[in-house]
Amino acid sequence: MGSNRTLSADSAVYARRESEVRSYCRHYAMEFDTAAGSVVRDSVGREYIDFLAGAGALNYGHNDPDMADALVAHIRRGGIAHGLDLHTSAKSAFLESFERLVLVPRGMTHRVQFTGPTGTNGVEAALKLARKVTGRRNVVAFTNGFHGVSAGALAATGNRHHRLGGAVSLPDVTRLPYDGYLDGLDSAALLERLLADGSSGVDAPAAVLLESVQGEGGLTAASPQWLRRIAGIAREHSAALILDDVQAGCGRTGSFLSTDPIGVTPDLIVLSKSISGFGLPMAIVLIAPEWDAWSPGEHNGTFRGNAHAFVTARVALEKFWSDDGLGSDVARRSALVRERLERIATTVPGARVKGRGMMQGVDVGYGGLAAEVCRRAGEHGLIVETSGASDEVVKVLAPLTTPDALLARGLDILEEAANASIRTSVAL
Amino acid sequence: MGSNRTLSADSAVYARRESEVRSYCRHYAMEFDTAAGSVVRDSVGREYIDFLAGAGALNYGHNDPDMADALVAHIRRGGIAHGLDLHTSAKSAFLESFERLVLVPRGMTHRVQFTGPTGTNGVEAALKLARKVTGRRNVVAFTNGFHGVSAGALAATGNRHHRLGGAVSLPDVTRLPYDGYLDGLDSAALLERLLADGSSGVDAPAAVLLESVQGEGGLTAASPQWLRRIAGIAREHSAALILDDVQAGCGRTGSFLSTDPIGVTPDLIVLSKSISGFGLPMAIVLIAPEWDAWSPGEHNGTFRGNAHAFVTARVALEKFWSDDGLGSDVARRSALVRERLERIATTVPGARVKGRGMMQGVDVGYGGLAAEVCRRAGEHGLIVETSGASDEVVKVLAPLTTPDALLARGLDILEEAANASIRTSVAL
Amino acid sequence: MGSNRTLSADSAVYARRESEVRSYCRHYAMEFDTAAGSVVRDSVGREYIDFLAGAGALNYGHNDPDMADALVAHIRRGGIAHGLDLHTSAKSAFLESFERLVLVPRGMTHRVQFTGPTGTNGVEAALKLARKVTGRRNVVAFTNGFHGVSAGALAATGNRHHRLGGAVSLPDVTRLPYDGYLDGLDSAALLERLLADGSSGVDAPAAVLLESVQGEGGLTAASPQWLRRIAGIAREHSAALILDDVQAGCGRTGSFLSTDPIGVTPDLIVLSKSISGFGLPMAIVLIAPEWDAWSPGEHNGTFRGNAHAFVTARVALEKFWSDDGLGSDVARRSALVRERLERIATTVPGARVKGRGMMQGVDVGYGGLAAEVCRRAGEHGLIVETSGASDEVVKVLAPLTTPDALLARGLDILEEAANASIRTSVAL
Amino acid sequence: MGSNRTLSADSAVYARRESEVRSYCRHYAMEFDTAAGSVVRDSVGREYIDFLAGAGALNYGHNDPDMADALVAHIRRGGIAHGLDLHTSAKSAFLESFERLVLVPRGMTHRVQFTGPTGTNGVEAALKLARKVTGRRNVVAFTNGFHGVSAGALAATGNRHHRLGGAVSLPDVTRLPYDGYLDGLDSAALLERLLADGSSGVDAPAAVLLESVQGEGGLTAASPQWLRRIAGIAREHSAALILDDVQAGCGRTGSFLSTDPIGVTPDLIVLSKSISGFGLPMAIVLIAPEWDAWSPGEHNGTFRGNAHAFVTARVALEKFWSDDGLGSDVARRSALVRERLERIATTVPGARVKGRGMMQGVDVGYGGLAAEVCRRAGEHGLIVETSGASDEVVKVLAPLTTPDALLARGLDILEEAANASIRTSVAL
Repeated sequence: MGSNRTLSADSAVYARRESEVRSYCRHYAMEFDTAAGSVVRDSVGREYIDFLAGAGALNYGHNDPDMADALVAHIRRGGIAHGLDLHTSAKSAFLESFERLVLVPRGMTHRVQFTGPTGTNGVEAALKLARKVTGRRNVVAFTNGFHGVSAGALAATGNRHHRLGGAVSLPDVTRLPYDGYLDGLDSAALLERLLADGSSGVDAPAAVLLESVQGEGGLTAASPQWLRRIAGIAREHSAALILDDVQAGCGRTGSFLSTDPIGVTPDLIVLSKSISGFGLPMAIVLIAPEWDAWSPGEHNGTFRGNAHAFVTARVALEKFWSDDGLGSDVARRSALVRERLERIATTVPGARVKGRGMMQGVDVGYGGLAAEVCRRAGEHGLIVETSGASDEVVKVLAPLTTPDALLARGLDILEEAANASIRTSVAL
Repeated sequence: MGSNRTLSADSAVYARRESEVRSYCRHYAMEFDTAAGSVVRDSVGREYIDFLAGAGALNYGHNDPDMADALVAHIRRGGIAHGLDLHTSAKSAFLESFERLVLVPRGMTHRVQFTGPTGTNGVEAALKLARKVTGRRNVVAFTNGFHGVSAGALAATGNRHHRLGGAVSLPDVTRLPYDGYLDGLDSAALLERLLADGSSGVDAPAAVLLESVQGEGGLTAASPQWLRRIAGIAREHSAALILDDVQAGCGRTGSFLSTDPIGVTPDLIVLSKSISGFGLPMAIVLIAPEWDAWSPGEHNGTFRGNAHAFVTARVALEKFWSDDGLGSDVARRSALVRERLERIATTVPGARVKGRGMMQGVDVGYGGLAAEVCRRAGEHGLIVETSGASDEVVKVLAPLTTPDALLARGLDILEEAANASIRTSVAL
Repeated sequence: MGSNRTLSADSAVYARRESEVRSYCRHYAMEFDTAAGSVVRDSVGREYIDFLAGAGALNYGHNDPDMADALVAHIRRGGIAHGLDLHTSAKSAFLESFERLVLVPRGMTHRVQFTGPTGTNGVEAALKLARKVTGRRNVVAFTNGFHGVSAGALAATGNRHHRLGGAVSLPDVTRLPYDGYLDGLDSAALLERLLADGSSGVDAPAAVLLESVQGEGGLTAASPQWLRRIAGIAREHSAALILDDVQAGCGRTGSFLSTDPIGVTPDLIVLSKSISGFGLPMAIVLIAPEWDAWSPGEHNGTFRGNAHAFVTARVALEKFWSDDGLGSDVARRSALVRERLERIATTVPGARVKGRGMMQGVDVGYGGLAAEVCRRAGEHGLIVETSGASDEVVKVLAPLTTPDALLARGLDILEEAANASIRTSVAL
Repeated sequence: MGSNRTLSADSAVYARRESEVRSYCRHYAMEFDTAAGSVVRDSVGREYIDFLAGAGALNYGHNDPDMADALVAHIRRGGIAHGLDLHTSAKSAFLESFERLVLVPRGMTHRVQFTGPTGTNGVEAALKLARKVTGRRNVVAFTNGFHGVSAGALAATGNRHHRLGGAVSLPDVTRLPYDGYLDGLDSAALLERLLADGSSGVDAPAAVLLESVQGEGGLTAASPQWLRRIAGIAREHSAALILDDVQAGCGRTGSFLSTDPIGVTPDLIVLSKSISGFGLPMAIVLIAPEWDAWSPGEHNGTFRGNAHAFVTARVALEKFWSDDGLGSDVARRSALVRERLERIATTVPGARVKGRGMMQGVDVGYGGLAAEVCRRAGEHGLIVETSGASDEVVKVLAPLTTPDALLARGLDILEEAANASIRTSVAL
């Protein structure tokens, strides 16, 4: 994380006035100005292909013209921007589209909670609700899970760097190995045993919280079998199954919900990042009716009615989820990414490709090498970042809408950067 | 909270698909559509004067035309919407304005942390940082304080309704009486004694967290003397003084920071709600340099680079804080509100006016009466809400920019609603 | 605490092999060997008057001959020594005496729980039971309270030295000022207000835990009025009133329970220290029947059936609590102690006498002076210790059975030590 | 647990006055009176062979005559009974014997902390010390571990029945599977991976706390290999290895410390139960010097100087640990127990023998059958209890000194009870 992939930029005001907490800008110190689709431009006019995509918040790329038009029209007609949890025309329209295009086709009776517009707030809400309904405290979470950094969500997050950031008490979470964490270990069987055993020391959980692909934790994808077993165990013990689909949802793996092809319907599902479609702050929790035990206002927040986001979110649903077009695009592009990453992996001893859909990457073994690959890519106009406990995975998180040719061009740059990094590291 | 001040509206989709957690819309069930300044319009064209102002997020009213123009221009030129914590031209411009108009004039060396775009996330960040720097766990917070509903912030929040929402552990907070909580009790002296006494059972705190006016807790305003004493005690014990200025800041009490006239400079200051000026999600923490001990990315979040908000926030600063115009407007309007509320208070046995600046209200003694006043006001075209432990305060939170005549009209409606409610309750 | 009042002794094995945690022996480094009544002898035959009395575990002095005879007879006849919680003849006999001499005369329907044989374990049990019955987590405890050092009890203990000993989480306790903690502060009124206020941030408590005289916290005695008000508030909020009578009970203040003359019957009462009469480990919790919701074995412990202690405990009850003799002795001796301590107090600027019954002391203002007084007393054959947040109180905790003349002799030594200490400190 | 194996007894006072928490006496309702060696007698003169042995507190049987003589002599000469942590002749003598017979022969430089006289208090002290030294909160504990029921120790205890007894917060423990918990799961490898992985969500631990044989958890014995690997992992991560040898220590498995034959020297070792030899309350923590960072009195307790226990503890050491006699007795008797339990196991479908040394038992598959076996044994004069998460293990915990013939007689009764229970259960 310490390397400085600076390419240019007058960033004096940041040095003077922004907190030490700033992070990505230490890798890409140029000042970004405009963007369209999968390309961003900096203040001096240079262009970059974007394989970071707002850390998954820009699944449809930057500044989609239809969303932009709708948003400008909303502003120009004096549409309400901020509505708390009052009824607004923008919210009704979003809800109706969401019902029609997401819930009904899946036979989901879930309701929608608009939380504070961040994934971590959605996770906090889901955990609170599961605890309220069950009257239990304990929550099962998994190694390498990432669920946000407010205290309730942070307790479920695995990353030590974030966990240590503040001496905060992080109680009431039982940590279990994620699928495939250790050779020979069947963590679903372990969970089953721990919950059946009255002396295991693992108290009955309010919820089991998981991602189907661990976006920040190193792109590990759980197997469908494992997910189904975990879902069954949760159900058997009357615990909520909470899917944190903040990064893997909204089409990132090809389907709107990452669990669509798996045959599991979680009790609570947290969506954020790309739900607004335009990168605007928004988060929702889908709640199966039998879990919807909130009393009015019990979990609140000022910005839970961000109407601008509702406008673009509705357009995103209408434009991209009325048919299977995006799904087949993602399937084709995922295969392209997989193929090229496999090729890169063959050049790095011990490397392997991880993830699924449009969240794949190469585990190159250690963070230093991954950072070097990203640094070189940046020098050649590709923005790409790492993932994993030691930042050891070079992670391709391109917009789902990236044209095939542009995607290929970005992968070319990445491959060249990987080859150059390997050559250098071998030469050393 | 249970009363239903419904005036109209087709809200079928809400009943079908929105979680039971919805709250304000149970009081105002109409569907809002457009808004300008201090007036909002519903879907069937009726107008309402807005004395709720996005719960304090709309200090400059709805859809300020200069902000709207700047935002549309930003969108039209393809300005980046979502930038994580990368450098963007929108962010630099905001930072420079903020430095020039807020920090430099106050001689503040503070740095700015862009957190997840909610007040609660800012509070979480501030608490974590104070705990990290001091290596202590305990935080002193006050009765009736409201700091948000994610677990770390919720621990510091007083409200039982929110605290109970989820059986969450809420550790590491010592609760002290706020200024004026109990006759004869000097809570600053109590804090001083507790921290000096090695056997008090109150561990050395990482921080003292407070609002200068308790926006949700019933509009109690702390005295300048008390705030200065608390600040001195915090300093003496090397604890951070954290000002939660989410509701009282950004001009709500007349000055940009609510502590400006008091002569206290907190170590950490959380701003949100009206910081973007347009109601868009944004939150920042101002951090005195000696407290800025974050390591890169230690507290992160996807939406901490909401460039749309940066654009409007910059316009808000330039437009409203380049001179003293707004300050004197607020002083004049506050006096008007005070005068009218005092008149209302005389008609309700035991009532009293609370708060300062443009966050004042009448404590009418119990929640039922306050709700009735708001309900009647709503019927006559005024949106107004309650505050306090039992929702016993009718709270006037009009935009700071409300023209005097419109403000008076809203207060007329409020007074008439109060009179009618009293007549009815007396008649019973 | 750092001073070393060593008078002699071969303590090589302690230096070699006992942990740094050893404490009292740093003040009195001689090796004690035998004892009778209020006099102890060291290994080289020197005698000391004992004003420490096993920190309150030896209310009837050392080696009471009747208890010793009964214990030897028990051993000689092969009486069971260790009985878990099985029925044993020694336990039945104790229970019957306790019922007849303690419970029935007070009209108490309480039941007896035999916990692990330490006061802290009794407190742990009481807190657990109150939380189980109420389903609440929070416990109200007071400044300067001392309730033991296992984690559950430690959370309620005020002393910072003990609280910091281990970075242990100490959650779920609300700390309130004890009676008289701060001039002008009515802490019963504060508790009443906090519990009535739905936004105070103080959650409904499972229990209010207190001592009637704070033995370790500086010998502060609560007023009867305050105790009655706190009891009333606890009852009104369905919280258990837990009396920690570990040090103040068993006659220390004149009556068997310290609350006897006050007209308060706590729901749960913890007794330990002098309950066995002979200094043997034993602890019990008295539980009002409506609070006795334990399931079998839910709180257990290997040594909860220490039959030796039951034997001596029965003799103690029969011998000392069949009539009012001890009560009037304590009244007379308390007055003697009070008179002499008042005289000492007049010689120390700012000093004052604290406590009641046979737990009184002089607050001499700071720990250094109190330690010096004790050190000098030790040199002249009096064992006496300090109490309070800064060890600022010289504490007379003589056996209740100390003959008046011996008590006077001890007080002579104490007075002389005080005078000499003052002379020295003035001379400096 | 609900069955009532009552054989006789007037227990009216218990019903009237003892708390519902009473447990063992619900199985054996007779009143016990005297005891010698491995035989106890009730109030009406009936005799019982004792295979419960004070839950492990009576390794040398009841009322050992040498200990009894020494204790009576101590009482008769006026020896101090209760000495806080002052130096007493009884304590010096114990310490010197302990050093000579236990520490020196093992090359252990450990120091001795005398804690409150219960195993749970020893565990609390060890956990606090490990947390203090490391500055870390987290402690690794294992499934089915039992470490006591005060809040700090309870957090590490697995048993749900105990954990739920009081809605107590039980934070700061990570639970891992004990050796052999799940087929195919290598829990040492799992621990290694979790601690090496910066994103596992398992924070660096202050300590790893374990029993070498789980006395209450079902008599599972860890393999030497596993114990050595865990010890190595703890050392590598600078975490204390804490051995809870409360039940398995003091010769129960053949050696004084249960880890003697394994080649592991824990940093902290908790001993209690049989350390006094006579069933008297006593507990110590052995602390490697580099971990002895207590400040004076930081962890205290009234009964940490129970001199009666020191007297008998010294005799126990001198009598039983001056040569290898007891060790070879235990080896021979353990083999006898093993042989007979194996025979019983063959008669129960699916049964298996567990444990090692003189803490072995038969897992008969479910609690109902184990309770029935114990009930029938009780009717024929054998006191024996169950162990395990579902009380499914019939546990033979006879005094180590039980003569072979008496041991055989007890096992005869047990076998007959097992056979009869099986016949009945098959017949049903």
